[in-house]
Amino acid sequence: VGFKATNQRVRASALAARQRTIAVSEFFAKNRHLLGFDSPKRALLTAVKEAVDNSLDACEDAGLLPEVWVELGDLGNGLYRVAVEDNGPGIVDSQIAHIFGKLLYGSRFHALAQSRGQQGLGISAAGMYAQMTTGRPVRIVSRIDGRHPAREVTVSIDTLRNRPEIHSRGTTSWHRKHGTRVEMDLEGQYHHGLHSVALYLKLTAIANPHVTLHLCEPDGTLLSWERTVRKRPPQARRIKPHPHGVELGQLIAMLKATDARHLRAFLRDELSQVGARRADEIIAEAGHGLTARSSPRRIAKHKATFLHAAIAAAKVPAPPADCVVPIGEAGLLEGLRHEVPARFVTAVTRRPAVYRGNPFVVEVGLAYGTVGGAEVALSLDGHPNPLAEQGMPGASEPVRLLRFANRVPLLYQQSHCAMTQAVMDVHWRRYGLDHARGSMPRGPLTLMVHLASVWVPFTSESKEAIASYPEVVRELSLALNEVGRRLAGHVRKEQRVAREEARRTEIERYLPFAADAIGAILDWPTAATDELAGQLRELVGSGAERE
Amino acid sequence: VGFKATNQRVRASALAARQRTIAVSEFFAKNRHLLGFDSPKRALLTAVKEAVDNSLDACEDAGLLPEVWVELGDLGNGLYRVAVEDNGPGIVDSQIAHIFGKLLYGSRFHALAQSRGQQGLGISAAGMYAQMTTGRPVRIVSRIDGRHPAREVTVSIDTLRNRPEIHSRGTTSWHRKHGTRVEMDLEGQYHHGLHSVALYLKLTAIANPHVTLHLCEPDGTLLSWERTVRKRPPQARRIKPHPHGVELGQLIAMLKATDARHLRAFLRDELSQVGARRADEIIAEAGHGLTARSSPRRIAKHKATFLHAAIAAAKVPAPPADCVVPIGEAGLLEGLRHEVPARFVTAVTRRPAVYRGNPFVVEVGLAYGTVGGAEVALSLDGHPNPLAEQGMPGASEPVRLLRFANRVPLLYQQSHCAMTQAVMDVHWRRYGLDHARGSMPRGPLTLMVHLASVWVPFTSESKEAIASYPEVVRELSLALNEVGRRLAGHVRKEQRVAREEARRTEIERYLPFAADAIGAILDWPTAATDELAGQLRELVGSGAERE
Repeated sequence: VGFKATNQRVRASALAARQRTIAVSEFFAKNRHLLGFDSPKRALLTAVKEAVDNSLDACEDAGLLPEVWVELGDLGNGLYRVAVEDNGPGIVDSQIAHIFGKLLYGSRFHALAQSRGQQGLGISAAGMYAQMTTGRPVRIVSRIDGRHPAREVTVSIDTLRNRPEIHSRGTTSWHRKHGTRVEMDLEGQYHHGLHSVALYLKLTAIANPHVTLHLCEPDGTLLSWERTVRKRPPQARRIKPHPHGVELGQLIAMLKATDARHLRAFLRDELSQVGARRADEIIAEAGHGLTARSSPRRIAKHKATFLHAAIAAAKVPAPPADCVVPIGEAGLLEGLRHEVPARFVTAVTRRPAVYRGNPFVVEVGLAYGTVGGAEVALSLDGHPNPLAEQGMPGASEPVRLLRFANRVPLLYQQSHCAMTQAVMDVHWRRYGLDHARGSMPRGPLTLMVHLASVWVPFTSESKEAIASYPEVVRELSLALNEVGRRLAGHVRKEQRVAREEARRTEIERYLPFAADAIGAILDWPTAATDELAGQLRELVGSGAERE
Repeated sequence: VGFKATNQRVRASALAARQRTIAVSEFFAKNRHLLGFDSPKRALLTAVKEAVDNSLDACEDAGLLPEVWVELGDLGNGLYRVAVEDNGPGIVDSQIAHIFGKLLYGSRFHALAQSRGQQGLGISAAGMYAQMTTGRPVRIVSRIDGRHPAREVTVSIDTLRNRPEIHSRGTTSWHRKHGTRVEMDLEGQYHHGLHSVALYLKLTAIANPHVTLHLCEPDGTLLSWERTVRKRPPQARRIKPHPHGVELGQLIAMLKATDARHLRAFLRDELSQVGARRADEIIAEAGHGLTARSSPRRIAKHKATFLHAAIAAAKVPAPPADCVVPIGEAGLLEGLRHEVPARFVTAVTRRPAVYRGNPFVVEVGLAYGTVGGAEVALSLDGHPNPLAEQGMPGASEPVRLLRFANRVPLLYQQSHCAMTQAVMDVHWRRYGLDHARGSMPRGPLTLMVHLASVWVPFTSESKEAIASYPEVVRELSLALNEVGRRLAGHVRKEQRVAREEARRTEIERYLPFAADAIGAILDWPTAATDELAGQLRELVGSGAERE
């Protein structure tokens, strides 16, 4: 009904009466495509992904080698039951309802530490989607040790208030000493294509060789990816914000929230790579009456501006390297060898860099050339492998790009990703590939690109593509050009070998005629002429080898 | 510092201790690129855009013809002051702090009604970005009528709690009887490129001919776009959810929240296009003991499933057309004529359709061909016009696509938008254009595409691209193919005219020789031969006309 009013007063107050707070759960329920739940196909994958990422993070936090079981049950009418179970540390009873029944709740958002989850949105959003499409709550079974019974909780989200609604809670018997199992029913679609659950798990195994994964498909087929390494990757260190990434607004908020009594202690305790001496230098540079003993909470805003400028200008080392844990060049090579046979394989792991205060590492693996002269079809443990079915791309096909962020494979939104952009922006022609600017290069090439960071800048909450921060794009470009140069060396060598081969073939074609001519001039018998042809052929062959 | 523990119990509880609620303002402060604040250039535009969109919505809600002033001041060091002032209804004092100092607060999220803002995020996010980059609060001056003094409030967001922090509030003298002025200082970058504030305002004027806009650029240049129409577009009607778009989870939430005492009243009052008779039909179809007098709040979940199925299966008319207000074919033609001179102009406004219960309308305007044989440079009111500088695209350049959603121009993320995808998926070759599948068609063509909806499915909170919902893509495709067919008719006509012209020219070339030959045979004097040539030429000319 259109709004009608006779004077301004009524108008403004009528508008005011409609103003309301919007719960974040209402926001995302209406915008669930932002979270990756826009189609049944994608929603099923996203739900599995969020649950598996959570399981892997929990296991690694607790220092356990992760083993995860994914079970998908077809309930008919386009509905599926998704169950994900892990051997992790379990969740204490008081936390279960919040973790699964409230959006924006978690342990990783406030920590600067590399992890798969970072927003406290994923698994609760999956539960909310399940509840939107089937009306059924999420069922969680969790156990923290052998001395406590397993807890079983069913919970949904009160979307109007963004808080958990507990349907049942109690104990249950469970064969597992510690771990967590999550079950949810949702509208989905199972398939074997390029965005399949099986592919996601396979790529996860490649980027996480210390993990064992199992999949029970809706038709009962069992797939397993056993760990190839029994050593966990080093634990990423939690760090404090780097001075060069702290914005003025953030600094003001930190000054207000700190427990430090003096400015020197504040700078030393709340920022990365700042010691007492560097703190004093910053304070001196800031001036305007600020001293080491100024109370952080009482620093006026205009003075904070000068402090911020001094912090931004301070000479501070790059963030410590151990806060980011890349896959490593050996791991990339191993992963690529696992994925696709190739004539040439190389990998580059860059040194840590920083974007807006967040340390990150870019690494790139490259596999080139088909083996046996033809494209090779790999099997996915006896099953059709959506990637390998295509083998290495053909000479006129776009190269294959496998994207990873914090060891999580990214399957959607490839064309919107900074990684894709960076690949398209390299001058691949220089490195021997067929390439038109602004599109993917073409040829038998598979690239594996990984970004590890304490905070990955995703383009949306669904975490499928990387935003184009200039520092990130620069590192991607440097890594890609490095593997590109190595590829060029290999391609040149292959081309030289091919040229020699062609020349030799050419010469060999004319040898019999030359032998015949000599034989005719000297009036040799046929046998002698044939012998000469053989000798000439040998001569040419050894000559090529001597080159 | 890495986490170490000796038994599972400690592990789980140590992890529990880190769990925390994340304020939505913290979330977006850390993810501000999701809101369009990823670079200084884009941030300045986004801030202006959010403020202008708010002003236009407020004016239209109050039934006022909007006039908006945008002032940009260069503060040096990459900082700008953005001020946006309108002649709207003003904001009552008690609401000012919440509207500008709290994310996810607003009047439009819960209403199914077409408006520019829909999320309650934009203007408060702009203020948060300003505060993050300069530490300064937002200043608001607002007045609701001549009997009340203007109120002046300075406010920032307490990002840890997502609530307003009021720095000052009081009355002030203001020349305006009613309206609102917002001022914020932020890190920005001003430019005249394709993503400029001037272009955004110009395109806004084209899609909103009832609006007057003024821009004061940082160098003091004044630009104005006067309204060309004194009539407001019809007010879009607020509607209830359409039965075919209500999901099970939403239905369960609605059953719980309703004031209706009986199921029949619930269906009739809370859903669009359902009267008492249709409600009874739905209830009969649902069965399982549900009756017209069942209490909505007491319907068990498994019964809600049957009710949901019956609602989804019910024969219900499409949503009422007046809940969505398109620009209209006349408006599109007028806008295109304003934008770029062309030889052929056409427009299509589709009938309303529905995606997930949300009514929407797609419309497309098309301008083809350069005038005067060359590309034409338009001036932007005496200023360089970033679009018109390029004129109509050349024969080998990609066509120009102007995207709009609810009358708001979309300047970023063109390649990620369903509109772009739909344009690339049309078989333009059929319609006479140069086109390779999977890329933009090429040629002297400008397309203006508008999606009007009670809920626009944006791909991210920054509202710059449309998500690819199948129903939306289908409508886009139908509209584009319709203008494409009309274009084909025109192109064929142009080609026929060109062919005839070529033939006539060809014949005319030989006429003098024919006349000479006849003259020579009959032994005519030169004058008579020339006269014959002239007569023949006339004959051919009139013959062509007769065709």
